Amino acid sequence: MTFGEFQVLIRETFGAKDASRGVAGTFMWFMEEVGELAEALRGGHSLDELGAEFADVLAWLATLANIAGINLDDAISKKYQLGCPSCGKIPCVCSPSEKP
Amino acid sequence: MTFGEFQVLIRETFGAKDASRGVAGTFMWFMEEVGELAEALRGGHSLDELGAEFADVLAWLATLANIAGINLDDAISKKYQLGCPSCGKIPCVCSPSEKP
Repeated sequence: MTFGEFQVLIRETFGAKDASRGVAGTFMWFMEEVGELAEALRGGHSLDELGAEFADVLAWLATLANIAGINLDDAISKKYQLGCPSCGKIPCVCSPSEKP
Repeated sequence: MTFGEFQVLIRETFGAKDASRGVAGTFMWFMEEVGELAEALRGGHSLDELGAEFADVLAWLATLANIAGINLDDAISKKYQLGCPSCGKIPCVCSPSEKP
C-alpha cells in the first residue's frame, strides 16, 4: 500500500471525526498510540501484536497529515528518496558523532 | 511509494547504523522527531517544512520497524484495510464517546 492510498483509506474511515477533533486533539490520540508502541517494543508481545501497534501509530500520523494538508508520499520522496538528507548518500556516510 | 519500498530505502540508507544503535536508542531519535513535529504543527511553518517533519517521523518509525522485524505494509493491511478495527465499518460508526 502506498502512503497516499493509506491516507485515503484513513480519510474514508475516520475523516468526518478527524475534521471535528482538530490537530491538538488528534495529537493526543497519536501520542497515546506512541506510548503503546513503546510498551510493545520493550518485549513480551508477538510480532502480530507489535505490528498492530505500529499500524495504530501510522493511522494517527496519517490522520494528522490529512488534517494538516500534507501529502506523505511527496514529503518522504522530497526528503529521503535521493539519500540521507545530511550527506546525500545511500548508504549514509555521516560521521557517527553527528548521526549515530 | 509503498510502506515496504520506504522500509527498504531507509534500510539501504541507514541500516548499518540502525542495527548497532538498537531499539531503545532509535526510539529516542524517533521521539526527538515527534517533538519537532509537534512544534511544526503548532504553526508558523510552511507546508514544505511541515511535510519534512512528517517525513522524519516516518523515517524513524520505519527504522524501528526494520529493527523490530515488522513489515509495515502487512501491519496496516491487517489492522485497517477492512475498516475501523473497532466497528469494522468504512466510515467508522463507533460512538463518539468511545472514539471521538
